[in-house]
Amino acid sequence: MSAPHTPLFTDLYELTMCRGYFAQGMHARQSCFDLFFRKLPFEGGFAVAAGLADALAFLNGLRFSADDLAYLCSLNLFDEEYLAHLREFVFSGNVQAVPEGTIVFPGEPLLRVQGSLEQCQLVESALLNIVNFQTLIATKAARVCLQAGFDNVLEFGLRRAQGPDGARMATRAAYIGGCVATSNVQAGADLDIPVRGTHAHSWVMAFASELESFRAFAAVFPTNSILLVDTYDTLASGVPNAITVAREMREHGEALRGIRLDSGDLARLSREARRMLDEAGFPEVKIFASGDLDETVIEQLNKAGACIDVYGVGTRLVTAHDDPALTGVYKLAAIADEQGVWRNTRKKSDSLEKATLPGIKQVWRLHDQRGMIADWIELEPAAPDPAQAVPGYLPSETAPHQFSGITQTQPLLQACMRAGEILSPQPTLTDIRAHATANLYNLPEPVRRLANPAPYPVTLGPRLWAEM
Amino acid sequence: MSAPHTPLFTDLYELTMCRGYFAQGMHARQSCFDLFFRKLPFEGGFAVAAGLADALAFLNGLRFSADDLAYLCSLNLFDEEYLAHLREFVFSGNVQAVPEGTIVFPGEPLLRVQGSLEQCQLVESALLNIVNFQTLIATKAARVCLQAGFDNVLEFGLRRAQGPDGARMATRAAYIGGCVATSNVQAGADLDIPVRGTHAHSWVMAFASELESFRAFAAVFPTNSILLVDTYDTLASGVPNAITVAREMREHGEALRGIRLDSGDLARLSREARRMLDEAGFPEVKIFASGDLDETVIEQLNKAGACIDVYGVGTRLVTAHDDPALTGVYKLAAIADEQGVWRNTRKKSDSLEKATLPGIKQVWRLHDQRGMIADWIELEPAAPDPAQAVPGYLPSETAPHQFSGITQTQPLLQACMRAGEILSPQPTLTDIRAHATANLYNLPEPVRRLANPAPYPVTLGPRLWAEM
Repeated sequence: MSAPHTPLFTDLYELTMCRGYFAQGMHARQSCFDLFFRKLPFEGGFAVAAGLADALAFLNGLRFSADDLAYLCSLNLFDEEYLAHLREFVFSGNVQAVPEGTIVFPGEPLLRVQGSLEQCQLVESALLNIVNFQTLIATKAARVCLQAGFDNVLEFGLRRAQGPDGARMATRAAYIGGCVATSNVQAGADLDIPVRGTHAHSWVMAFASELESFRAFAAVFPTNSILLVDTYDTLASGVPNAITVAREMREHGEALRGIRLDSGDLARLSREARRMLDEAGFPEVKIFASGDLDETVIEQLNKAGACIDVYGVGTRLVTAHDDPALTGVYKLAAIADEQGVWRNTRKKSDSLEKATLPGIKQVWRLHDQRGMIADWIELEPAAPDPAQAVPGYLPSETAPHQFSGITQTQPLLQACMRAGEILSPQPTLTDIRAHATANLYNLPEPVRRLANPAPYPVTLGPRLWAEM
Repeated sequence: MSAPHTPLFTDLYELTMCRGYFAQGMHARQSCFDLFFRKLPFEGGFAVAAGLADALAFLNGLRFSADDLAYLCSLNLFDEEYLAHLREFVFSGNVQAVPEGTIVFPGEPLLRVQGSLEQCQLVESALLNIVNFQTLIATKAARVCLQAGFDNVLEFGLRRAQGPDGARMATRAAYIGGCVATSNVQAGADLDIPVRGTHAHSWVMAFASELESFRAFAAVFPTNSILLVDTYDTLASGVPNAITVAREMREHGEALRGIRLDSGDLARLSREARRMLDEAGFPEVKIFASGDLDETVIEQLNKAGACIDVYGVGTRLVTAHDDPALTGVYKLAAIADEQGVWRNTRKKSDSLEKATLPGIKQVWRLHDQRGMIADWIELEPAAPDPAQAVPGYLPSETAPHQFSGITQTQPLLQACMRAGEILSPQPTLTDIRAHATANLYNLPEPVRRLANPAPYPVTLGPRLWAEM
């Protein structure tokens, strides 16, 4: 796990609020918080939930160390009595969450955290950090892979990632979203994600000539060489030299795996390179492309007839370049009084979109014969009855939609932590990636669309609607 | 340090290239790599170097662990002989670098790494990751602080930062760039950065009324309460309730520190809130503002006559929202042959801007009586002679500029690691921040400007120019 395993991984105001709850005798009151986002990233039609495993690892066994307490003492904000109380702190709440790799939409709780007010409040910042970032990157990766094909995208973002977490969390999320491998060796080692990579311009520059550098690389990796052909002149030098080496390899019973284009007009260069390779008798040599790619560029390359087999996507994927923050929030939905009687809470707002949804809720995905047709958020323990039309309210309308012909009602929030312990089994990363890919294939085309997607209906059940 | 301390924190191709160099008997050849960026972020006129301390900490004592080697063995790319060689690997190179907090420009080496080809190549990805990100965020913070004032910006980005490194590297870089404190408790503890924060909407929502919640908070923090006034209705409810509590505090000899606005038209709300506080007799109560702020929004708020004392800046700062990646690169500048004779290397390109600068170089900052007037990159050991006019070539022009009246010539690259050991003393974070602030105050106004800044001249000395 790469998130720091300390309750200090938080904004200070969580601690000052907790100090306040303690002073008021409110800290032990039971509460329920929802983590959700209000707006889809990238002007897209969907998001891919990710980050839960790291969130649970953060919560599990969370305590203050002696060093943590000494630091808090040094701030002169917390008295001895409260620090003594924090010494006994351990996260012992319950978490229900949407499984990683699931398609999610605005307003839907991705995590529902229940426990003492103090415990639930203190973990807000860390949960937002972890889930916001991984959900953002998994969503971006899914968008890229929907354009490029799910087996054709390598994640190359380490050097431009926002800090060393590119070393793990961005790579993990990109893999969930559909990337097939990464250049990031540490993430490969830690998470068992396939790693890929061959050579850079510096390899070519370290030799007296490009041809010599290609020969040397092929000699070391006779079955796994992808030659970077744009150091000097792609079509006049790089591709011809690669073909020369491919011929020499063939004479030795070896085979060049591919060439990589990293600059210039990738559509034209890839078409020309493909023609040159084919005419030289190397139709099996694959063309890799890299260099500031994203889903929009790949869509344009596809339209321009580019001959690219595999895309290396870096900067724009791991930074979510065109929309680099998912604005997830974490809001109090219900709180119990001293007698254990629950009160639903919400932040009021002029617009329903800015308001929060009160109460302890479940998110139901409604399917008919053709697939998923709407989500339905309702207060527990109510459940949709597929035997009749299910009434779902959209915030912008007063009369409910009636969803009929329901063949499946799927509760998205599932128990994954009880009393601070992670429930087993948790899915493997391979399971999560497969779940995401299956979800994306089943997503209605208008929702999956790159630009101007159709909004997927996220509706409220009648009991929840009555609370708004 | 938050960067993983393993050579696996790298792109796979660094390792495959190193394998190739080893096979070719080239791995021990001496080499020199430059880390630089080609384009200023945010369409701005300058950048603030940051990340060096973490880069040096990464390099110092860098070795493969037994687990690292076992993982590499499992990839079936590296034979026993090479893995045995890696077992002995330790980074023992030299680093010259521009001190953190220094203003830097495109094309200038921020780090110059010299050592064996293998060692220098292997650390490329990690150095880029660390220096790219921190330089980006320090630059963004400087832009924000130039608008808001250097003592008036708090960094609040943890929850929207791109992964847990928001917990440290973004906070560290934001502090270097001029932020005065952070909400991030862990970064405060690790780096001795001041921490700040009070309460969130959930505090208000946990009470039966807003007024009750304000009273409770003031009771716990009688000297340090900043009340968030926008949970329900800022002007109709939040500010009047805060004034009520301020009056009650005054009766007890206490004082409300401030109110915080987090949504809505901050210019109008802050003016109204200021008027209400002043009329109620509380001109000393400060107004804090937060919510999707950046340097452009703050400039607009200033123009609109907003009455804001302190800005909390989060998402847009720690993600560098409008330009979320600094595209730093790391290029081979020179390599020695087996006999130790150096050859300068460079990547050719149609445009000089895309080309790399060959050879082992120093960056000189030329000052005249008014301040810094140009930077001058030249092959070592040449130095500018202030006794006469210094000829500096701009890539776009053939005749050199003649810089005369030079009063100071300052070499920016300074030795900071020798034979893998960090040279002492290294500056403290406080030193670095003070250096950055002094640099920013001394930056010519046209270069410092938010939009359409004047380009600062980065010129090449005659010997370097002759190599282009």
